[in-house]
Amino acid sequence: MKYDIKDKTLRKKGKERILWALERMPVLELVRKDFSRNKPLKGITVGACLHVTTETAVLALTLKAGGAEVVICASNPLSTQDDTAASLVFDYGIPVFAVRGENNKKYYQHINSVLAFKPQVTLDDGADVISTIHKQFYAGKFKEKYLPWGSTEETTTGVIRLRSLEKEGKLLYPIIAVNDAYTKYLFDNRYGTGQSTIDGILRATNKLIAGTVFMVCGYGWCSRGIAKKAQGMGANVIIAEVDPLKALEAVMDGFLVMPIKEAVKRADIIVTATGDINVIRKEHFALMKDKVVIANSGHFNVEIDTVGLQKMSKSVKEIKPLVKRFILKNNKRVYLLAEGRLVNLSCAEGHPAEVMDMSFANQALSCRFIVEKKGKLAKKVYKVPNFIDQKVAKLKLASLGVKIDVLTKQQKEYLQSWQIGT
Amino acid sequence: MKYDIKDKTLRKKGKERILWALERMPVLELVRKDFSRNKPLKGITVGACLHVTTETAVLALTLKAGGAEVVICASNPLSTQDDTAASLVFDYGIPVFAVRGENNKKYYQHINSVLAFKPQVTLDDGADVISTIHKQFYAGKFKEKYLPWGSTEETTTGVIRLRSLEKEGKLLYPIIAVNDAYTKYLFDNRYGTGQSTIDGILRATNKLIAGTVFMVCGYGWCSRGIAKKAQGMGANVIIAEVDPLKALEAVMDGFLVMPIKEAVKRADIIVTATGDINVIRKEHFALMKDKVVIANSGHFNVEIDTVGLQKMSKSVKEIKPLVKRFILKNNKRVYLLAEGRLVNLSCAEGHPAEVMDMSFANQALSCRFIVEKKGKLAKKVYKVPNFIDQKVAKLKLASLGVKIDVLTKQQKEYLQSWQIGT
Amino acid sequence: MKYDIKDKTLRKKGKERILWALERMPVLELVRKDFSRNKPLKGITVGACLHVTTETAVLALTLKAGGAEVVICASNPLSTQDDTAASLVFDYGIPVFAVRGENNKKYYQHINSVLAFKPQVTLDDGADVISTIHKQFYAGKFKEKYLPWGSTEETTTGVIRLRSLEKEGKLLYPIIAVNDAYTKYLFDNRYGTGQSTIDGILRATNKLIAGTVFMVCGYGWCSRGIAKKAQGMGANVIIAEVDPLKALEAVMDGFLVMPIKEAVKRADIIVTATGDINVIRKEHFALMKDKVVIANSGHFNVEIDTVGLQKMSKSVKEIKPLVKRFILKNNKRVYLLAEGRLVNLSCAEGHPAEVMDMSFANQALSCRFIVEKKGKLAKKVYKVPNFIDQKVAKLKLASLGVKIDVLTKQQKEYLQSWQIGT
Amino acid sequence: MKYDIKDKTLRKKGKERILWALERMPVLELVRKDFSRNKPLKGITVGACLHVTTETAVLALTLKAGGAEVVICASNPLSTQDDTAASLVFDYGIPVFAVRGENNKKYYQHINSVLAFKPQVTLDDGADVISTIHKQFYAGKFKEKYLPWGSTEETTTGVIRLRSLEKEGKLLYPIIAVNDAYTKYLFDNRYGTGQSTIDGILRATNKLIAGTVFMVCGYGWCSRGIAKKAQGMGANVIIAEVDPLKALEAVMDGFLVMPIKEAVKRADIIVTATGDINVIRKEHFALMKDKVVIANSGHFNVEIDTVGLQKMSKSVKEIKPLVKRFILKNNKRVYLLAEGRLVNLSCAEGHPAEVMDMSFANQALSCRFIVEKKGKLAKKVYKVPNFIDQKVAKLKLASLGVKIDVLTKQQKEYLQSWQIGT
Repeated sequence: MKYDIKDKTLRKKGKERILWALERMPVLELVRKDFSRNKPLKGITVGACLHVTTETAVLALTLKAGGAEVVICASNPLSTQDDTAASLVFDYGIPVFAVRGENNKKYYQHINSVLAFKPQVTLDDGADVISTIHKQFYAGKFKEKYLPWGSTEETTTGVIRLRSLEKEGKLLYPIIAVNDAYTKYLFDNRYGTGQSTIDGILRATNKLIAGTVFMVCGYGWCSRGIAKKAQGMGANVIIAEVDPLKALEAVMDGFLVMPIKEAVKRADIIVTATGDINVIRKEHFALMKDKVVIANSGHFNVEIDTVGLQKMSKSVKEIKPLVKRFILKNNKRVYLLAEGRLVNLSCAEGHPAEVMDMSFANQALSCRFIVEKKGKLAKKVYKVPNFIDQKVAKLKLASLGVKIDVLTKQQKEYLQSWQIGT
Repeated sequence: MKYDIKDKTLRKKGKERILWALERMPVLELVRKDFSRNKPLKGITVGACLHVTTETAVLALTLKAGGAEVVICASNPLSTQDDTAASLVFDYGIPVFAVRGENNKKYYQHINSVLAFKPQVTLDDGADVISTIHKQFYAGKFKEKYLPWGSTEETTTGVIRLRSLEKEGKLLYPIIAVNDAYTKYLFDNRYGTGQSTIDGILRATNKLIAGTVFMVCGYGWCSRGIAKKAQGMGANVIIAEVDPLKALEAVMDGFLVMPIKEAVKRADIIVTATGDINVIRKEHFALMKDKVVIANSGHFNVEIDTVGLQKMSKSVKEIKPLVKRFILKNNKRVYLLAEGRLVNLSCAEGHPAEVMDMSFANQALSCRFIVEKKGKLAKKVYKVPNFIDQKVAKLKLASLGVKIDVLTKQQKEYLQSWQIGT
Repeated sequence: MKYDIKDKTLRKKGKERILWALERMPVLELVRKDFSRNKPLKGITVGACLHVTTETAVLALTLKAGGAEVVICASNPLSTQDDTAASLVFDYGIPVFAVRGENNKKYYQHINSVLAFKPQVTLDDGADVISTIHKQFYAGKFKEKYLPWGSTEETTTGVIRLRSLEKEGKLLYPIIAVNDAYTKYLFDNRYGTGQSTIDGILRATNKLIAGTVFMVCGYGWCSRGIAKKAQGMGANVIIAEVDPLKALEAVMDGFLVMPIKEAVKRADIIVTATGDINVIRKEHFALMKDKVVIANSGHFNVEIDTVGLQKMSKSVKEIKPLVKRFILKNNKRVYLLAEGRLVNLSCAEGHPAEVMDMSFANQALSCRFIVEKKGKLAKKVYKVPNFIDQKVAKLKLASLGVKIDVLTKQQKEYLQSWQIGT
Repeated sequence: MKYDIKDKTLRKKGKERILWALERMPVLELVRKDFSRNKPLKGITVGACLHVTTETAVLALTLKAGGAEVVICASNPLSTQDDTAASLVFDYGIPVFAVRGENNKKYYQHINSVLAFKPQVTLDDGADVISTIHKQFYAGKFKEKYLPWGSTEETTTGVIRLRSLEKEGKLLYPIIAVNDAYTKYLFDNRYGTGQSTIDGILRATNKLIAGTVFMVCGYGWCSRGIAKKAQGMGANVIIAEVDPLKALEAVMDGFLVMPIKEAVKRADIIVTATGDINVIRKEHFALMKDKVVIANSGHFNVEIDTVGLQKMSKSVKEIKPLVKRFILKNNKRVYLLAEGRLVNLSCAEGHPAEVMDMSFANQALSCRFIVEKKGKLAKKVYKVPNFIDQKVAKLKLASLGVKIDVLTKQQKEYLQSWQIGT
């Protein structure tokens, strides 16, 4: 079996952690039982470019239970859990191509290693596989017959990229935007990113959040999750936004809203989660307070201009793992976490299993949907079908032991009537 | 001039209050200035069936400034501010047909009084005017030539009714669902209903919210606004829902979620805001704690089965204005606020001017949109055009003195590109 | 029977409201039952200088049930509920000397009317009765034999005054500082003042709190209650303090802390609750934003320099009840609520019955304590005895249906041992 | 130099982390500068029994800067950071006796190793040194002339033990209860324990807090800190208490309050922080939900009856570091963190440096106070003198860049006067 991982001897710790995740993903467990019985993915190769974490391992086992061959590469050079990778290869026989800290060249080699398996379905987290395929195809280096039947995409960032591709009329096969499932983005982005971003900052710095001025760039689902949790930990939160609607929501939610140039003068901690490039840049570094902590929770490490920061500094030192101290020429100290890569995966363990449970149930069920609808879907970016969303929500509630009401017959009729008024 | 109001002598207090609202609606003020210059509604009659409050008065003055003749009736028998009505008629020359506490027959007479003016545009809040027109039309009692060019609808409840009408293929002219503007439902429903519901309960009961178990039926935009503010006042909040997705959000937001039958056993205060009928009914009253307070914030007074409550009671007494005490046969006391009509308008003053500022700017601009697009819109329920939404948000931020960032050229390009990845 | 009230015809509404309060004060109800049986206050005259509200009425009925003759005057010229006063006189035979809006001269005449009854115990709320007695005594106008056996004091402000008196060695008889009971200041000041201040602002202005910058002067028990509820309603809260410890707590609780001069530049709403004089003064008015709302929740109307404000203004008008608009010479508008008197009592109904239930149970039990300990207490300011505090807490929990644990024998022993360690 | 540590080679990582803490403790930095100049501890030996963390290292360096010889042992067998210990010995020449995971026998040997240095002042965290001295003294094994001049105590738990000792009349020398400084217990206990407990749970389990039922035993300063942060992370929090006053506060703060036996049926996560023994015991384990997570944040590992849990289980396994899974005979799974030892120190890094900054500034200044007052203090448990508390608060505010107001002359006079009233 081909693979490329860091260290085989880590498999024991990896398996232990995978088993811990297995106990915490009850929705995926129900899907796995169903897949085991019905083998809906029989004969299919699934190429997954995801963060190589224990939760991804549980998804891989679920797909495998459904009959698929699964091959995995990392969706981020810094998020791979090497122990999980080792266990996947040696305990579960799943080829993995991922080494924590791999460079960009190796990163794309690994994507190509997965493509060498000729997957019918790919799962993406940031759209790097899909864009690799498209680039190669338009360069004449990818044969049409090997194009996947369809792909899923996990992130806001990836979906933005894919809609651009669709808009240009260049999309080659159907995409299921798993990110846009309600049971994904309303939960994973908000509660998952919220908690794990705080978690990453705490593990990296052990800094007291209470009493800090905590600035969040963006007020989308991820960023508002971060803002709320930071406030919940006692921070005074400032929001920077470019969209007037979201900015207004932030104001009404009780946050201070101001342009980045103003906010950075006050901030003790700065987190970006916008999906855009150079959000924090040289003009901002110049205005910051001494000892500011900066981190990114957006998918790509482009939100903070780390190159610019380097140029403005007279001294750069990694003072502890994943904390790099830049001493600017104005003598202010800036602490950058995880090189500006996503702090929740780099400094903590990423989203908790409980929330990935829902996101990955959407992945597994969307994967089956692509297989079942082979040839019937257009070259478009699709939403996750509503029946999948509803199913995931119901299974999750059940797993939490929460019961809810159902509408009476009279209530259903009332909602469908336009005649009954005052 | 025709009109039907309670008491002319109230005009002084009414004018005073309208002037107070005028100082607090800066977005509508900007719209009004524009309308004054350009007279986009010249020659148009606008029939408005809205809560007759000071904010509605400011909207009416805005439409009038745009050249329209405006005629008003109430959209709820219990929400009319008689002083505002008096001032509108005698200070501003706007015909009003609304008397607080009018019965249902009078309520519909007033709607017909407005229709007698043959409005080209109607503004609705609950869809009673639109449904009256449709019922009369299909009964052969409303001439086609007098059908409005279009109508707006302010509420979730009304939009649900109108989508039913559209679905049945019976919609006679285009509707702009003002409720569905982001700058309306994300703000008015959430922050406006949230605050004013608490306000209504406080004015009616002066009850300490801190330490109560506060049950909210629904977790839509209105109900989650109520839940958040109740929590903000120190209550322990329980949510009842029928939609698994919303129920799951409530759980993740930290609320207890359970079926109504369980929740009513624990609740000290119960508020409904679902848009549906008989949400709280006999089977629930039987389980309630002594001294429970019940109120409704949904549009219609159908959410609480007050008739059923009456039947179960051995004693009923209005112990103070808008607080009716039912002593059940099991000796438990139930305090019903405002007869189950919307507590925020009946017991307090409805949404604050600051939030109606946005909703009614949407109304005014949608009204102009209908006039400008005369004959070009289909018989459909339309969203508010995005340019209106954006405009309202920007004006509101400006009025609050909040500045936000704009994307750089590089950032805009990045968002449109699919090629740049890891 | 002597009395001085506004209007006898208001008694019906007053009684209705007193009955409503009676249903909501379960702790006092239990005390009343006990007092009825044991008549611990037989033959005693109690002179109460309290806000004349329905809750005070329930306290008066409790003392009367204990055998006392009760006489009441107002502790604030603007907080009297004239209907409650009417009912107390004509339904319950309790002499009341209080007219809402009375001037300062009349206010002190009413205090003297109460003293004419020669009370053995006085209840004070701001220490005006005690200070009147002391001033008269030291001026040779109050006979020693008529000095009360003891007095209670309800407020932080009053206790500060009385400790000054004690420190100067001039205190003439024992004081029970009801304010300092845990079951008083931790609840009444924090939850009661917090809610009722928001309530007062809402009733006076109907302003949307969400999205405002809400400045609170002080971070004592009252002011932090206000801050928390304002935040709960969606405001962005700024704290001004003079005590470094409290300021630091405010910072760690996530609030912005800054000097008043900075804060007033940003505030949309300003509330004072410090117990001190001229907290907001000319130098501050000059810096305020247009349309700022100012209110006071401290006991006395000295916290806002209303005279200074008047002098800086070119126009002053009461634009609606209890809202006075000052147009400064710089054209900024300042809205002052209730003339700077306590906004919760002037614009709303004061503390909810549920929280006064605890404070006034302390009053009633302290009153009995003074009678029982006649001649045995020194001329000091005493805390409420701990057994009273514990009793009130237990009764309140029981009335809320909340059960708690008790320590096991082993646990009690463990807490008393110093030997058991790691 | 004598010492007992785990591994010399860890010194590099330890030093790196100590330097990181040094950058984050600005108050202690100011004290250190002052100590360096004035050498107030010259010739003194200080024996410190504290958690061996980087913050303790900064304190030790501060005391050393003041001229003291410092000797350190651990105050908990599981909280030692072995790298910090190594650096203290080899980089800073400070004897340390502490090995993470040491058994109880070794733990007390280490305390005796410190006592062998004959310290004039001891610093305690849980009172184990003080109680060792007292036990030895009363057993005739500790010479009177070697009794310390005084000691400080850092924790609530320790102060409770020492007050028992004082009450029994057996206290041998003065104690400064550093725990009771406002700048300690209001901050360290509330914000420090609050955050670090959440942090410990996240690092051990990576569990999603949002949507869980999170039960906290106790509502003292530590436990309410935990409750607030858990709520801030999205949990639904239940409080168990034995004190009616604290229980009532919890109710009014919006938490559910119920006896432990009820609460454990609902809880997903249980944390104890009471200072008492066997808070969670066999009768409770029997009622728990499947997959419950249990942790302790109280000082000693006695709050959870781990022996009883063991006996009820048919399988026990450490499924990942610091997470032990007990499968009960009823097949429910219970996950116990860190063997029931304090989760914030065992699973995370303890209190953040920013909060220990204040606690340890109190320690350093109290240490100097003991030396300066040698022979003048009674055999009592003293509060930290107010001037120290105020000094720490002011230095901390300054380090945060927060400015506050000062009272005007008029305001000071007003607060001291009893004559000015309504």
